Amino acid sequence: MNGDSNTKVLLVKRPGTGMPDASLFKIVEEPIPEPADGQFVVKNVYLSLDPAMRGWMNDVKSYIAPVKLGDVMRGQTVGQVIASKNPKFRVGDLVSGIGGWQKYAVADGKRGGWEKLVPGFAPTLFLGVLGGTGITAYFGLLRVGLPKAGETVLVSGAAGAVGSVVGQIAKIKGCRVVGIAGSDEKCKWLVDELGFDAVVNYKGKSADQLNDEIRQACPKGVDVFFDNVGGDILDVALKRIRKGARIVICGAISQYNAAQTKGPANYLSLLVHSARMEGFVLFDYIPEYPLAIRELGQWVKEGKLKYAEEVVEGLERAPEYLNMLFTGANKGKLIVKLADEPAQFAQARL
Amino acid sequence: MNGDSNTKVLLVKRPGTGMPDASLFKIVEEPIPEPADGQFVVKNVYLSLDPAMRGWMNDVKSYIAPVKLGDVMRGQTVGQVIASKNPKFRVGDLVSGIGGWQKYAVADGKRGGWEKLVPGFAPTLFLGVLGGTGITAYFGLLRVGLPKAGETVLVSGAAGAVGSVVGQIAKIKGCRVVGIAGSDEKCKWLVDELGFDAVVNYKGKSADQLNDEIRQACPKGVDVFFDNVGGDILDVALKRIRKGARIVICGAISQYNAAQTKGPANYLSLLVHSARMEGFVLFDYIPEYPLAIRELGQWVKEGKLKYAEEVVEGLERAPEYLNMLFTGANKGKLIVKLADEPAQFAQARL
Repeated sequence: MNGDSNTKVLLVKRPGTGMPDASLFKIVEEPIPEPADGQFVVKNVYLSLDPAMRGWMNDVKSYIAPVKLGDVMRGQTVGQVIASKNPKFRVGDLVSGIGGWQKYAVADGKRGGWEKLVPGFAPTLFLGVLGGTGITAYFGLLRVGLPKAGETVLVSGAAGAVGSVVGQIAKIKGCRVVGIAGSDEKCKWLVDELGFDAVVNYKGKSADQLNDEIRQACPKGVDVFFDNVGGDILDVALKRIRKGARIVICGAISQYNAAQTKGPANYLSLLVHSARMEGFVLFDYIPEYPLAIRELGQWVKEGKLKYAEEVVEGLERAPEYLNMLFTGANKGKLIVKLADEPAQFAQARL
Repeated sequence: MNGDSNTKVLLVKRPGTGMPDASLFKIVEEPIPEPADGQFVVKNVYLSLDPAMRGWMNDVKSYIAPVKLGDVMRGQTVGQVIASKNPKFRVGDLVSGIGGWQKYAVADGKRGGWEKLVPGFAPTLFLGVLGGTGITAYFGLLRVGLPKAGETVLVSGAAGAVGSVVGQIAKIKGCRVVGIAGSDEKCKWLVDELGFDAVVNYKGKSADQLNDEIRQACPKGVDVFFDNVGGDILDVALKRIRKGARIVICGAISQYNAAQTKGPANYLSLLVHSARMEGFVLFDYIPEYPLAIRELGQWVKEGKLKYAEEVVEGLERAPEYLNMLFTGANKGKLIVKLADEPAQFAQARL
């Protein structure tokens, strides 16, 4: 096909405690694959990095099987079909699916959630606002958080890929929206660009200070807390909930690298306030993904749903880029660019 | 009225950490009160002791105001009206309400939830299966836990006043019911007398042992966990929940005397299993109490709902009796007898 080879990042070691590093992975070069009957080959152009990847590296039973040692690390990509023996996916098609941490993926159209991209949007959006993170925000907030107009919605990890979409959907639904983020620059972006009503910068704050600032930002208390972070932030939020509050457990990015997860000591606030804390797994909503993508896409076109992308380069550095999510270095969706964009990517944006 | 005086137990100190003791209370003797216009006087015969009392002693905002220092300690009683200037409550009526830790209570029929007892049941039942604990079990299980026939319901504090009713209602609804209790004798009672399907004695067990035993007792996993205990038991239960499980937070008797509540470190199991943890306050259901009492009473009459009562004597010793709830010394409903039963109590049982 061309002079390229298929660079693959294999998971070869379980991370244990602490942030994952390059020692967990092995980079190999293989020939570009050829499709067998029913298969097609995708040249991955962009790879999504997500906090959930940290969990997939652990050898524990969860909502999805762990990545096997020696396998390509799991991840969503967008790319272009470059060879096909599958009538539904033709050479040149722009697609998204679980392409993995590799330059070329072989797919059969059954596993891996491969879909052709909806025209009219930048392809990277299908890793962000129109992809897993946007759909997570959509169902987590609307189906688990059940926000009502006039209620106060508090979001942690608010400048992240999921949190930033959660806050904007809550605004669209008529809520007062308060974000918790880790820098003044992120906080300013949330208010000035995304329309958040108030923000709290958690960095360097004690639990008492956080409590005071969240109280000021949410004078009526919190009706919905959408939590991506866990730890102290979850505990403080529990102190500020109102009667009948809903706490959506989407993630716990502060805890993924800890030896022992910190449980929410203030959980009895759920009792006192007849409130609930509820988790969800995106896969529960697979049949409804098209509905979410349609509505999210409409909001993007109308300018009601904005987004930030942080694009970094070099598949080999993906392990270190992943840790940007845990240190809070990125704003919005973190994406690794794996190859130059084909011409069709620019056309798709129009 | 007679030669008696009104012994009152006043809360005079906040408990801080640890089990409450007699030093928090002051016992005073006063004349038996006379009713003003609209009031009536109740001779308290039995006083309910409940784990929630521990929380009412703390000076913290909760679902109910703390007991003020110098006030009679709050508690539900059953007794008899001995004097009345209220047309709705006549001398001789058997009643239940927030009569407090005292021999005689003055009531106005508006505050304190005073109700005449439904005839045909032993009066003490209105402190237990037909009182706050039974109604707590009823709404907590049926409205928050939402058990479906064939599901597995796990109950902690299963031999307690609430837990024993929860388990029996779950059996009535066609569930597999597993109880966690603190002695072999209690476990035997739950299986032999109350019809629990399986039991786990938690005393002296490590978290790993508890996990193994609960796994064996709940081979399909746990659909509803009704938690009265918190701490390690909640954490182990979180490991054993199934997809879509409901964890009902009714109390945390293992944590009330702790300096710092232990949060559930395994709370991310809620995420992995699309499950929820939800608290409730009995007062949310006040308009529906009669419905619950009617159905609970029917089950008692049919022999489907059994109960144990542990009756202790002497108001002065109420502070030490209260700690039986925290050491697990009692089985079923813990009640303090304050006076000899009037003849009408025996008649009510018929």
